[in-house]
Amino acid sequence: MQKPYIFQTLQKFLTENRERETREYCHSLHPEDLAALLPDLPTEEQLRLLGIIGHDAAADALSRCTSDDQDRIAAMLQDSELAAIITAMPSDDRVDLFKRLAAERGEKLLGLMAQTEREDIRKLGSYKEGTAGSIMSSEYANLTPELTVQQALEKLRLEAPDKETIYYVYVIDRERRLLGFISLRKLITSRANAQVNDIMLTNPVFARADDDQEEVAAKLNRYDLLAMPVINGNEALAGIVTFDDIQDVMIEETTEDFHRMGGLAHKASPDLANINMLDAGWWLLVSKRLPWLLVLVFMNIFSGAGIAYFEDTIQAAVALVFFLPLLIDSGGNAGSQAATLMVRALATGKAQLKDWFALLRKEICISASLGLCMGLAVSCIGIFRAGPEIAVVVALTMVCTVLFGSLVGMSLPFVLSKLKMDPATASAPLITSIADIGGVLIYFSIATWVLRDMIAAAG
Amino acid sequence: MQKPYIFQTLQKFLTENRERETREYCHSLHPEDLAALLPDLPTEEQLRLLGIIGHDAAADALSRCTSDDQDRIAAMLQDSELAAIITAMPSDDRVDLFKRLAAERGEKLLGLMAQTEREDIRKLGSYKEGTAGSIMSSEYANLTPELTVQQALEKLRLEAPDKETIYYVYVIDRERRLLGFISLRKLITSRANAQVNDIMLTNPVFARADDDQEEVAAKLNRYDLLAMPVINGNEALAGIVTFDDIQDVMIEETTEDFHRMGGLAHKASPDLANINMLDAGWWLLVSKRLPWLLVLVFMNIFSGAGIAYFEDTIQAAVALVFFLPLLIDSGGNAGSQAATLMVRALATGKAQLKDWFALLRKEICISASLGLCMGLAVSCIGIFRAGPEIAVVVALTMVCTVLFGSLVGMSLPFVLSKLKMDPATASAPLITSIADIGGVLIYFSIATWVLRDMIAAAG
Repeated sequence: MQKPYIFQTLQKFLTENRERETREYCHSLHPEDLAALLPDLPTEEQLRLLGIIGHDAAADALSRCTSDDQDRIAAMLQDSELAAIITAMPSDDRVDLFKRLAAERGEKLLGLMAQTEREDIRKLGSYKEGTAGSIMSSEYANLTPELTVQQALEKLRLEAPDKETIYYVYVIDRERRLLGFISLRKLITSRANAQVNDIMLTNPVFARADDDQEEVAAKLNRYDLLAMPVINGNEALAGIVTFDDIQDVMIEETTEDFHRMGGLAHKASPDLANINMLDAGWWLLVSKRLPWLLVLVFMNIFSGAGIAYFEDTIQAAVALVFFLPLLIDSGGNAGSQAATLMVRALATGKAQLKDWFALLRKEICISASLGLCMGLAVSCIGIFRAGPEIAVVVALTMVCTVLFGSLVGMSLPFVLSKLKMDPATASAPLITSIADIGGVLIYFSIATWVLRDMIAAAG
Repeated sequence: MQKPYIFQTLQKFLTENRERETREYCHSLHPEDLAALLPDLPTEEQLRLLGIIGHDAAADALSRCTSDDQDRIAAMLQDSELAAIITAMPSDDRVDLFKRLAAERGEKLLGLMAQTEREDIRKLGSYKEGTAGSIMSSEYANLTPELTVQQALEKLRLEAPDKETIYYVYVIDRERRLLGFISLRKLITSRANAQVNDIMLTNPVFARADDDQEEVAAKLNRYDLLAMPVINGNEALAGIVTFDDIQDVMIEETTEDFHRMGGLAHKASPDLANINMLDAGWWLLVSKRLPWLLVLVFMNIFSGAGIAYFEDTIQAAVALVFFLPLLIDSGGNAGSQAATLMVRALATGKAQLKDWFALLRKEICISASLGLCMGLAVSCIGIFRAGPEIAVVVALTMVCTVLFGSLVGMSLPFVLSKLKMDPATASAPLITSIADIGGVLIYFSIATWVLRDMIAAAG
């Protein structure tokens, strides 16, 4: 890690008031490295540094800070300074910052900005969170079809500094409708007098502004694209989504899936997905964790009721209770495994909804095999601990609970998907609780039947 | 989905023996779309199609097929045909295919290929799976520092067809040591007679060939890079890793984390992470699932032993068993939540190993709050169902088990990380089993103490 060295150098320049060196040094750094150490400087030094390095570099660094740091720094900057920095920020990052500002300050800042930026912020800000529109950038490179390669290259050369990328260029007509796509690689390897129209690819892969960002991510990955054009309701090109934004989306969406699988909030919670654990507030975490825990407590009452129903059986053979955690947990564990496999396979396209029946048949074979192996293992413990009769009960129960748990765990993600819910809501804790209810009923039903003579004698 | 339409068109051309149209149609498709429908064609048509479209297009399509389809198709192709297609494949994809071939056939194919390709395959094949070297491509664009911008652009124009990307170009000396980096954007916006040496960025971000691919992915994401240069042991540039390969790595590594969290194989299992669920063999799934299930069964014996130890308490107050699933599951559920939060936060850099103590203090507050809320909830059920004494036992136990489960769930990922194991090994099933053992001991200890008079009377 170079961070301590960069930090010390920068602080030295700042304390010695060497403004020119500070500026030059910061410009030589990757904006990401500057963004990483900015929050570690004392507050007044942060503001001074942003002033010294100029609006463009300040915008680069600020757009790479975390939301919290951005908000904190924005709150300290003067309106004119902040407006200038925001103007220089990439269009997708600045609209995210804008959405978090208080309405009053936002309006004040808009008043200080040029009309183009104002309209851009209003337009990009109007798309719903989680859609392609909400993550796209409006700074895409575009060409008209009648240009020659030489003219196109000249245009890109001039516009390069203001564009998110010039490696993928979109060809549009007067109404901004998407006609085709051309890569810079194709442009620089084509004859100078060839026409864009003749060398562009027609039918480019595109997304619609209201497409789910997760689908957009999957498409961009599938076709290995650097960027994908986004079309609005009028069929006009509205922006592009780039691979680096998609990587952030992938991480966020996967974190949400993890959280759901762990029995945290079942709704999408970007607030929980993007926050640093040390910064996450007490109430945020409690409010995300408590609801499911309470739901599961009430589900577990059914397991308890099952046990209560079989109180006579338990009184007659208390040794049965020894095997209770082992049997019901095994069902839950096998179920968690099956659910995890399916949730992730559905998310990555390695399983399809239509394959449910085929996968169910497969799961029956697999979980029966697992159940038999485990039944064999526990029957040994059963004989040693409580005699052959209880060993039979325990082994039979193991096969049935592992089958039951696995089939529930494997099917629930599909059912949730069909109900338009996130398959990851089939969390390990939920599967465990369902498997527990089933396990208790299976165990004591089998026990009551096999041990009926013993129970009758005790009664 | 366009797939059915593309498929029908292609099959029509093939059955009508219209070779020229077939070739032109395939060249107009995205290689990804061609790869997607290739396996759906009858076997002999697959071979015919690959023959018709030419080695370059065949290589593009084949490199985008799944490993299984690649292996199947490779097995059917004649040696000379396969050697030609492999020669045209991207260097990173062809070495992956090569590694899966039988040694004998591999040697035969190498004999049919040019020396450059032979050496390239041997070199790339020598890196360990999971390292930067194993996913890098050797087809990177490079320049020497004394070239002018005009000369550089001319060189890139000529080499473009053979390079993985020409948007990022690496500047190297005679010993192939990495001197700097320059983007095509920078090249085309610079003066034609400027020297590469003067406009290149020195100190580019790079990886070493034996770096873990997950770290490489994190670095590339952090700096939003299209590609990253990879340096070998001699400090020479050996290849580049591109963003699309990194996206595949991210998906694979995340799937492995999911599987670990779901209590599947604790070792990295790319075979399970990359396979389509319908294709996954019975034995693969059983062998990944059974070991943990058996380990957990034996852990659960401790819970059973705990229960057996308190048999007198249970005999005296069988009503206690009603609350058993509810109490031990709650500890496991809270623990799964805490573990999930930490595992994912550690994986995405939203928590650091050094923050353990601060996070532990935080978790104590949060889980105590959760425990109190849930204790209150269950004490109501307790009073209604089994009277005030047992209600007190149940409420007290709830607070303690939720605290215990949460602290185990929160800490285990850190401990595993310290032991150089994957934090995701702290799976929901493992946490549940540990929480169960703790829960049983806590519950019956409290019960034995609070209900000591009742137990004495029963005894």
